[in-house]
Amino acid sequence: MSEQNLVFLGSFASAKSLKELTVNFGSIIVEDGKITKITNQLVDVQSDRYSGYKIVRLTDDQVLIPGFVDCHTHAPQFPNLGLGLDRPLLEWLEKYTFPLEKRYSDVEFAAKVYDVVVKRLLNNGTTTACYFGSLHLEGTLELAKSAIKHGQRALVGKVSMNLKNDAGYYNDTKKELAEVERFVEAVLEYKNDLVQPILTPRFAVSCDDELMSGLADISDKYECRIQSHISENHSEIEYVLKINPDCESYAHVYDKNRILNNRCIMAHAIHLTDNELQTMVHKGVAIAHCPASNTRLCSGLCPVRKYLDSHLVVGLGTDVSGGDSATILDAMRRTMDVSAHLEMKGNKGFAISWIEAFYLATLGGAKALKLDHKIGSFEVGKEFDALLIDPYAVDGPIDKHAYSVSGNAEEHVINLLQKFIYVGDDRNIAQVYVKGEKAKYLL
Amino acid sequence: MSEQNLVFLGSFASAKSLKELTVNFGSIIVEDGKITKITNQLVDVQSDRYSGYKIVRLTDDQVLIPGFVDCHTHAPQFPNLGLGLDRPLLEWLEKYTFPLEKRYSDVEFAAKVYDVVVKRLLNNGTTTACYFGSLHLEGTLELAKSAIKHGQRALVGKVSMNLKNDAGYYNDTKKELAEVERFVEAVLEYKNDLVQPILTPRFAVSCDDELMSGLADISDKYECRIQSHISENHSEIEYVLKINPDCESYAHVYDKNRILNNRCIMAHAIHLTDNELQTMVHKGVAIAHCPASNTRLCSGLCPVRKYLDSHLVVGLGTDVSGGDSATILDAMRRTMDVSAHLEMKGNKGFAISWIEAFYLATLGGAKALKLDHKIGSFEVGKEFDALLIDPYAVDGPIDKHAYSVSGNAEEHVINLLQKFIYVGDDRNIAQVYVKGEKAKYLL
Ligand SMILES: [Zn+2]
Ligand SMILES: [Zn+2]
Repeated sequence: MSEQNLVFLGSFASAKSLKELTVNFGSIIVEDGKITKITNQLVDVQSDRYSGYKIVRLTDDQVLIPGFVDCHTHAPQFPNLGLGLDRPLLEWLEKYTFPLEKRYSDVEFAAKVYDVVVKRLLNNGTTTACYFGSLHLEGTLELAKSAIKHGQRALVGKVSMNLKNDAGYYNDTKKELAEVERFVEAVLEYKNDLVQPILTPRFAVSCDDELMSGLADISDKYECRIQSHISENHSEIEYVLKINPDCESYAHVYDKNRILNNRCIMAHAIHLTDNELQTMVHKGVAIAHCPASNTRLCSGLCPVRKYLDSHLVVGLGTDVSGGDSATILDAMRRTMDVSAHLEMKGNKGFAISWIEAFYLATLGGAKALKLDHKIGSFEVGKEFDALLIDPYAVDGPIDKHAYSVSGNAEEHVINLLQKFIYVGDDRNIAQVYVKGEKAKYLL
Repeated sequence: MSEQNLVFLGSFASAKSLKELTVNFGSIIVEDGKITKITNQLVDVQSDRYSGYKIVRLTDDQVLIPGFVDCHTHAPQFPNLGLGLDRPLLEWLEKYTFPLEKRYSDVEFAAKVYDVVVKRLLNNGTTTACYFGSLHLEGTLELAKSAIKHGQRALVGKVSMNLKNDAGYYNDTKKELAEVERFVEAVLEYKNDLVQPILTPRFAVSCDDELMSGLADISDKYECRIQSHISENHSEIEYVLKINPDCESYAHVYDKNRILNNRCIMAHAIHLTDNELQTMVHKGVAIAHCPASNTRLCSGLCPVRKYLDSHLVVGLGTDVSGGDSATILDAMRRTMDVSAHLEMKGNKGFAISWIEAFYLATLGGAKALKLDHKIGSFEVGKEFDALLIDPYAVDGPIDKHAYSVSGNAEEHVINLLQKFIYVGDDRNIAQVYVKGEKAKYLL
């Protein structure tokens, strides 16, 4: 392995549970990409035990946190980031999204864009991303290659669609299923333990039963994860029920095609009925909450608190380019915003705190992607995906003033974290580690 | 005057009205800080007419826009930016806000903080700020001096409070009125046409009738502007009505003390009754909409569309540190967010578009501060407060991809603006001009 062993000395913070934060001052030892020791003391780095280890001493104003997990984003849509969000959903799809996605039949174009996308997300602290690619086999393999090249942990999905649309952006069913299987095998053949394939029926508007159940078969055969969209907006739900008259709900459409299981992650899930919620909890389906996109496309306000209280597993997604930000910091803030707005509109207890948002961005996302045995928090035995946070970075957005609310050491770390989470940006992420390897890019 | 005459060649965009944007490609001529010519052609900069002028050629991807107007922010609270926002309002005030504000009796501390605050806001593109200072005369004069030193356009208010609070942070009425008058005269004596005093009763919770009507007298005497907070949250409103049993509404308390007039700007105004709204419209009072603070402190969702439809003048405010962002870009985004959420919760037509948010951040703010004869848009005769926007700045947050939705020149500028407004940050503000003078700081 090329990983260097590491000793971190300083403050670190990590989610213990939804409402509990663990803050430590001491040492984290990383060997072959894994955390092998966490102590509340500064280990003696002069001892033979650590000879040859790289020693990273944090300043008093720096904090180490787990890397961010983006549970849902569309890599091919990044060139449209921030564009066309004043259009209604269908016009946005037809004028902005589909014409762009069709461009990824051009492998060279795909390679160029995906190189920038992966570096941008790593720079933003996204150590793990769950990607929608495009319909194209070769183009989407470029996304997997880019993640491997830059050392990002990723689930990469070739998008599947077989129902006709005006843009002509869909595939024949048999061809699609064959290509998906080739895609899965190609990604597995890279034998990169950070990058895995994920099956990706776009949504029930663009996939029929034959395609979806065929994808479920492939998912079973390869024990692959599977992702899609569910219940994003009211007209979408109506349309799905119209073309599936045998189903009593949107979730039912996926369920009859064996999509809903504990390898499945669904984006949005804003307007779930209580029955759908129970089905998803029962089947172990996780959701990717994408507040930026839900607000920008006027899809709805997702009742995350209700879902968490029902034991649905929730992670955060940026959903670019329906979402207008490629950073999980923004997803955390907007999770707080949307939930506070729901609380103010009469839903007592719905507000999500910054500590809860931090959990969703790290351990929650890891659980949603079924990677929490490997990542999401600092625990001995987990792989070391981490961000070195520097709230007062030179040229960064946060000023350091000669004033502090408290002298207490733990409160100092809490204050640094709050400043980063509420006010910080990529300039405050001094370094990014994926499985112990540096992965921060100067863009 | 020290201003250099300038010729700008390239694309520029400015709000014409709430729903109309003017996009031009051509030239803007600035002489002695004022716009003297706007053309749709590139003027011949070799001609004698422009000899000695500084020529600024924009790239194809840059756009010139009017500077941002922050109609409401608390300069002394900047060291607490991003802190304590998980606390309820009263605990936040007592644990975080008042103890910090009291520190500004130390003039040296005040000078240090305000120097950073003014530079930070200019760096964020805020060419005009309407400031709350602290209770302290000398400390708040440091804020005015800092604005003058760094060339920011500003209204600066010494905060007035005479009702007792636990923190002991208030003044005797006579002393307060005398200090306010000294403050106003001191600022006027600086004879700086960019920086003016504004009377600043904190809110009706901390000021009695004697103080407020005394301030109204001073406002009349000096023809000064006056600012306060109104109708921020329900318990505040209840409390104000309880201590003013003779008044039928919050606005009535200010009105009986002659605070409400066309020199007045009120922050928040979230929960106005229809009568209060009519009173404010009738009296020519403007409001500063502060969506970040309203969400973070769970104050409410301000129905901006309803107010605009009723011809209330609205500008945007960051309201640091109840707000957790010191940039009007964030205020624009959150204005869109809150209004979209109101729309999705059943208020048809409430969503504010990015073009409308851009208006509120520039011309709307200028109108709210009664400065629209001088600033807020690019018009011949107005002073030149402007931002040179560079969406694809190196090291900035926006990637340039070899792809564009359209080749149309005006749509290109619209796309650049959208990317900046939705995704950009201070790194995309290549230069800031206030009255023709450069005012961008490397922090
Ligand atoms: Zn999506
Ligand atoms: Zn305020």
